[in-house]
Amino acid sequence: MADRLFIFDTTLRDGEQVPGCQLNTVEKIQVARQLEALGVDVIEAGFPISSPGDFNSVIEISKAVTWPTICALTRAVEKDIDCAAEALQYAKRKRIHTGIGTSDSHIKYKFNSNREEIIERAVAAVKYAKKYVEDVEFYAEDAGRTDNEYLARVIDAVTKAGATVCNIPDTTGFRTPYEYGEKIKYLYEHVDAFAAGKSILSTHCHNDLGMATANTAAGVLNGARQVEVTINGIGERAGNTSLEEIAMIFKTHPDLGIETNINTQKIWPTSRMVSTLMNMPVQPNKAIVGKNAFAHSSGIHQDGVLKNVSTYEIMDPKDVGIDENAIVLTARSGRAALKHRLSVLGIEMKDQEQLDKTYQKFLEMADKKKQLNDEDLLVLVGASASSEESHVKLEALQVTSGKGVTPVAAIKLKIANEVFEAAATGNGPVDASIKALKNIIRRQMELKELTIQAISKGSDDMCKVHVQVEHEGSVYFGFGSNTDIVAASVEAYIDCINKFKVAKL
Amino acid sequence: MADRLFIFDTTLRDGEQVPGCQLNTVEKIQVARQLEALGVDVIEAGFPISSPGDFNSVIEISKAVTWPTICALTRAVEKDIDCAAEALQYAKRKRIHTGIGTSDSHIKYKFNSNREEIIERAVAAVKYAKKYVEDVEFYAEDAGRTDNEYLARVIDAVTKAGATVCNIPDTTGFRTPYEYGEKIKYLYEHVDAFAAGKSILSTHCHNDLGMATANTAAGVLNGARQVEVTINGIGERAGNTSLEEIAMIFKTHPDLGIETNINTQKIWPTSRMVSTLMNMPVQPNKAIVGKNAFAHSSGIHQDGVLKNVSTYEIMDPKDVGIDENAIVLTARSGRAALKHRLSVLGIEMKDQEQLDKTYQKFLEMADKKKQLNDEDLLVLVGASASSEESHVKLEALQVTSGKGVTPVAAIKLKIANEVFEAAATGNGPVDASIKALKNIIRRQMELKELTIQAISKGSDDMCKVHVQVEHEGSVYFGFGSNTDIVAASVEAYIDCINKFKVAKL
Repeated sequence: MADRLFIFDTTLRDGEQVPGCQLNTVEKIQVARQLEALGVDVIEAGFPISSPGDFNSVIEISKAVTWPTICALTRAVEKDIDCAAEALQYAKRKRIHTGIGTSDSHIKYKFNSNREEIIERAVAAVKYAKKYVEDVEFYAEDAGRTDNEYLARVIDAVTKAGATVCNIPDTTGFRTPYEYGEKIKYLYEHVDAFAAGKSILSTHCHNDLGMATANTAAGVLNGARQVEVTINGIGERAGNTSLEEIAMIFKTHPDLGIETNINTQKIWPTSRMVSTLMNMPVQPNKAIVGKNAFAHSSGIHQDGVLKNVSTYEIMDPKDVGIDENAIVLTARSGRAALKHRLSVLGIEMKDQEQLDKTYQKFLEMADKKKQLNDEDLLVLVGASASSEESHVKLEALQVTSGKGVTPVAAIKLKIANEVFEAAATGNGPVDASIKALKNIIRRQMELKELTIQAISKGSDDMCKVHVQVEHEGSVYFGFGSNTDIVAASVEAYIDCINKFKVAKL
Repeated sequence: MADRLFIFDTTLRDGEQVPGCQLNTVEKIQVARQLEALGVDVIEAGFPISSPGDFNSVIEISKAVTWPTICALTRAVEKDIDCAAEALQYAKRKRIHTGIGTSDSHIKYKFNSNREEIIERAVAAVKYAKKYVEDVEFYAEDAGRTDNEYLARVIDAVTKAGATVCNIPDTTGFRTPYEYGEKIKYLYEHVDAFAAGKSILSTHCHNDLGMATANTAAGVLNGARQVEVTINGIGERAGNTSLEEIAMIFKTHPDLGIETNINTQKIWPTSRMVSTLMNMPVQPNKAIVGKNAFAHSSGIHQDGVLKNVSTYEIMDPKDVGIDENAIVLTARSGRAALKHRLSVLGIEMKDQEQLDKTYQKFLEMADKKKQLNDEDLLVLVGASASSEESHVKLEALQVTSGKGVTPVAAIKLKIANEVFEAAATGNGPVDASIKALKNIIRRQMELKELTIQAISKGSDDMCKVHVQVEHEGSVYFGFGSNTDIVAASVEAYIDCINKFKVAKL
């Protein structure tokens, strides 16, 4: 019988801390529910002491999901653990994830401490967390660069203090699969708790040298029974191990004798949801979830594939949920069809009122664009989610540009129910519009980045625009969607303005 | 002393065959020169029998570079080998890469043959290629799924026939690093030519399960001395092994005892060039070359990095050529400054006339946008490269759109020196413009995809637009750049039209 591997998803913690990937609580709940449907065992929901937002997210995610264990991160510090325990109060199954750096570099430069003291602090943190919860995971930060003999002493001590899971992070993404596998094997062989079934080893790999997935698989093949992963491999720097790659490695290699609880057919919609909500594009040549991942292009290969699918394919696109006959909705589709399709995409309407509002927006969009696909629906829901109580509203915009004309924009904004108008020229339609807007809202604000995420398959398609605006030292993120690319850009800019901390304009 | 590992780059062959990544000969020469500067040992320049374009590219690349070996791909077929030899005639160092499928699936379904006959065909192809060149590489397609005992017989036979390099592709990206390493080790131990120094083993891994890089490294650690890689890991489906990941693994792990000739400081500009010319975005969390690859975000990490860089960094961004103080050019920059910066980016101006023309375009762009960065310069050169003899030219465009107005466009085109005008409405400015254009050019043509590659760091920045238009069953790729997003889109569309096979409009 195959061994069960536990999937610990940290998309909402290690993934979400990447600049520009921040989600609001509503979006985090959407992702958490989708992760539950995908079949993950543990959801790391946040780092409660780090901000009130993280604290609240852990509470709300705890309420929103049923089966997965909810995990909260802490340092090896009592106030962190108190805070995590409080945030986890509503979780049906709960885990505190505490730990400390164990490499010489961390011990010396980060803690100005020594090896024995670090073991004491680690043990104390685990014991303190055990007062609140049964399930305590310990992480040995920078374990990848910690020598095995000392690491085994740390891990032995924390398992004796009651750690049910021991996480061995390759924090800097430095190790090769051979080295990382040997490290896990050494720990398995030198710490009694693992063979005794009192604790399990967990991998946590980073992709700096492109080997996170292989390192994780090597860890599992040498005794780890939990893997810490993210959707699309998002995370700091080059990211974390990709959930989808690990799930498909063990599915396509049953001879390795490892089973997960992942419903692989939910991989594709989960990947789309995370990419869309976090504004983190997936490159076309990304394994499993890139748009080319299952596309065969060269003449030789096409010929082979036509002769027999097994010549070139090791996976069936359907197994990861790529549905080539995806349903397309139109203005004639009813509320039930919309609700069903949203639910397939992992989005549940909370009541009839929310459905009605979303359906109204759906009809408006269907009026501009005849056929709405899954991407459009995600945009629609994203747009509905942003507050309807905006302080600044775009009443009207008229822009003229092209070639051989001076781009000019006239804009009408409603600010706290008063209407203002202004005009400006620029070197393009977006530039002219933003200059016109600045003639009304005379705040220090600077556009840092403007990305147009997708216009595809037709000039009449929806555009999605993400912008970053700097205002008084903080960077704000805004989003707009419209069939008109210029209007979408201006809407995204206004979305940012509505988020400025001091909203007195 | 460290062992020398040869880098075989197949960006221009296995990478370039991905839909949408096709380059013209001028662009291929740009990439080839950059690969030479990067220090690759072998450039696979194309598959000459497959198209006249590939044939010509091999000829032109052979003329353009000096040090790297130029390699041409063939099947195990005489006419392929004749064609490759002809295409390689100007190469200073040349190699023919021939081979055949060796897995049971390939032998049965693709060749309707048997194991003994496949060995005969393999040997015959190598012997035939040896009549033309000394350096012959053999590939055993789908070697990843070929049993080791039979594979060793094939490889032994071809090395006896004179193959100087034996390529062991994991064509479907199925193998784990352990399995792939064991395969290479088995071949090294069971085929005499390798230990005798008469032939070397080469890896060629695909990334379907996210393990191409680790498989390649495992191959090297078990005896392979050549790796087949691409810039940014581009290639069919989930792509090939990334050159930059392999180069940095061996650079950051000198204990592994492997050296390459790669000048790692050229990695970043090469990555940008390939991504820009091929219109293949690199995801932010891509190892080494993603825009977040060296960004530290979380509070804990930032604190650690401030205390000591070694706490979290295993690589210095400067080592891969990320130059945070990159030079920015303005309208006051002279021809020499432009020429120098282009040369840093790997682009050489062939004569004074080309430099003058490019400088003129540079001044026009600098007039619209004050500071031009490296990305802008690449756009500039790309735009200059497209023919000035276009059949259809955009004379003028005037578009009005926004919110609360009906998008409307008036367009003026010059076709074969006659001027036409038309107007149309649409659901956005790009839609209206393309409809107006279609009122003049009444051909069957359909927009398949429109992507806006980069507007960043300011609303007055350059936009780059790539489009795909289908016309009479063929898909054409077009490119436009302008500070005006709508004008750039229309220019890209017209660029496509000018490429239609039958240019009688």
